Amino acid sequence: MRIDGRDYRTIWLDPDGRRVHVIDQTRLPHRFETLALDSLDDAARAIRNMVVRGAPLIGVTGAYGLALAVARDASDAAIEAAYARLLATRPTAVNLRWALDRVKALLLAAPAETRAARAYAEAGRIAEEDVACCESIGDHGATLIRAAAEKNPGRPLNILTHCNAGWLATVDWGTALAPIYKAARAGVPLHVWVDETRPRNQGASLTAFELFSEGVPHTVIADNAGGHLMQHGRVDLIVVGTDRTTRAGDVCNKIGTYLKALAAHDNGVPFYVALPSSTIDWRIADGVADIPIEERDAREVTHIAGLGSDGVVSEVRLTPAGSPARNWAFDVTPARYVTGLITERGVCAASKEGLARLFPELAA
Amino acid sequence: MRIDGRDYRTIWLDPDGRRVHVIDQTRLPHRFETLALDSLDDAARAIRNMVVRGAPLIGVTGAYGLALAVARDASDAAIEAAYARLLATRPTAVNLRWALDRVKALLLAAPAETRAARAYAEAGRIAEEDVACCESIGDHGATLIRAAAEKNPGRPLNILTHCNAGWLATVDWGTALAPIYKAARAGVPLHVWVDETRPRNQGASLTAFELFSEGVPHTVIADNAGGHLMQHGRVDLIVVGTDRTTRAGDVCNKIGTYLKALAAHDNGVPFYVALPSSTIDWRIADGVADIPIEERDAREVTHIAGLGSDGVVSEVRLTPAGSPARNWAFDVTPARYVTGLITERGVCAASKEGLARLFPELAA
Repeated sequence: MRIDGRDYRTIWLDPDGRRVHVIDQTRLPHRFETLALDSLDDAARAIRNMVVRGAPLIGVTGAYGLALAVARDASDAAIEAAYARLLATRPTAVNLRWALDRVKALLLAAPAETRAARAYAEAGRIAEEDVACCESIGDHGATLIRAAAEKNPGRPLNILTHCNAGWLATVDWGTALAPIYKAARAGVPLHVWVDETRPRNQGASLTAFELFSEGVPHTVIADNAGGHLMQHGRVDLIVVGTDRTTRAGDVCNKIGTYLKALAAHDNGVPFYVALPSSTIDWRIADGVADIPIEERDAREVTHIAGLGSDGVVSEVRLTPAGSPARNWAFDVTPARYVTGLITERGVCAASKEGLARLFPELAA
Repeated sequence: MRIDGRDYRTIWLDPDGRRVHVIDQTRLPHRFETLALDSLDDAARAIRNMVVRGAPLIGVTGAYGLALAVARDASDAAIEAAYARLLATRPTAVNLRWALDRVKALLLAAPAETRAARAYAEAGRIAEEDVACCESIGDHGATLIRAAAEKNPGRPLNILTHCNAGWLATVDWGTALAPIYKAARAGVPLHVWVDETRPRNQGASLTAFELFSEGVPHTVIADNAGGHLMQHGRVDLIVVGTDRTTRAGDVCNKIGTYLKALAAHDNGVPFYVALPSSTIDWRIADGVADIPIEERDAREVTHIAGLGSDGVVSEVRLTPAGSPARNWAFDVTPARYVTGLITERGVCAASKEGLARLFPELAA
């Protein structure tokens, strides 16, 4: 993706092949800054504090975190400790465990002196696979979008999205936004309703920043507004990402996604979820019962940061000092409200059968 | 209601019997300030800028706005102009028209020299009726809450509310919060989930302020969180207000209410709407088709005010400068998702028949 005329990914290696660089997503949209990760500590902190976020990008950052750890200490014990440390940073997205499992298994099977190089190589492969996977999701999803646009000729197709499942949530392209970028570049007229996505405002900050950078027409709305828009025929299609998908097609995504799925169902609006297969947790079927929902610091609800009239980014308190707050980060949308899953292998029903058809070797 | 040990209403007359005083709700929860309204202009601006808000309070402020106008010019033309001016301030709440119609009809039928006194007297009567009406809603709703609490002994009843339908939205007591205050004062153990209610944050600012002032246990949550809480059995009951109710029981309330009603329906959570009969628009049945939805300044979405660490309330920008935003203030919850309406005459089904049973003289 291009920002101010320069190509970026969300995570890349220093020319020294060791140091890891990321875009500091806590500073967007008001500041574009990058951050260097030099150690396991840096990587764990970047994930925990949402300097990097989005299930695929968390996975890649986790893999690089293991590499940073192994570059300092290649022992089995150090690998296990780094694995546990990174796995504990965020509990809901399953890509993190998927990427960490993959790198750890490879490392433990290799001679200690080769482990650092292997870890970096494997993290790099996961990153490249993510890019290819997201591009493929984009192609499959763009076909859907084009078909929907052809049913409504003469006006832009209105697509609603929640949170940020764009290139900032992955290494490049994104999941939910990849189809939008592919369709927009192919000339399909479209407009995106961007849910601001309280409390972290990933929509109003990250998705709006991405769409503006890409020149895709969009409008930021409060999370509360989507139902009203759907009641009045102003949403043609919804596409969101997911941090964990069960083998039965339940999707766990940013808190509030479930409410939009209900409104879509009530108004006959197609509700699609875009995902790389690395977000599928094949061990579980019932998302509401079995996916742990991260609870984050209440301060994310009581305070908010923004750009002051003095050009300085600062934080203000929104709630009365005496009022407590709580802050769950995700909710689960049951498969029955999902029109289809857009994966790197194509679109399928949000069901055990649908997923098993596309991923028979994983579903088995 | 009491604030810092002093009893307040949201609107009251100066000892001179002319000047109107209100609580400046745009300054809460960080500053408690009152504002004097000396003219029609002041009253219209206070409604438009949401210094006062909430359907019942808008109605009373409109009535006093007519009185302020008539005190300066008691001619028919001046009354008609003031009526039109006040009616245009906010399009969705029907109490405004209801109160303005009532005062205007009285004034036009009276000799010019008596009009000012009559206008103040009638505005005062509307205010007193609102207090009595809300207290009655509180009594009927408290009975519901007590019954729900008795079904779940040994723990506080969890009630979710959206926006502010408390005493700040009325003259005193509130609509949706009146039953909560009545039940809490009667010793029913309860806890309130307070939707922050973007973009104006009336929940996080006004409802939290009220509940804190009254000592009612509560927790502020993002608007996105309610569905998750309901999926996990953490909401026993929802009660919200309404700015306009159709004769068929559709309710138009703060944007996002519809999404909570859908989640309540999906999870078997009772969804009640509390209202004085002055919010019922007997002329219309289909809320989605027939209620005009106010669109407000996009700046309410792109910017937010809060208390800085320096103790100063300031505004920060949330979105990228290049990203447009839009801001609808209300949505409509169809009657089929409403468990019951809590009115000053009791609880009824959200239907033509339910309303006609309680208000036969109005439904006819």
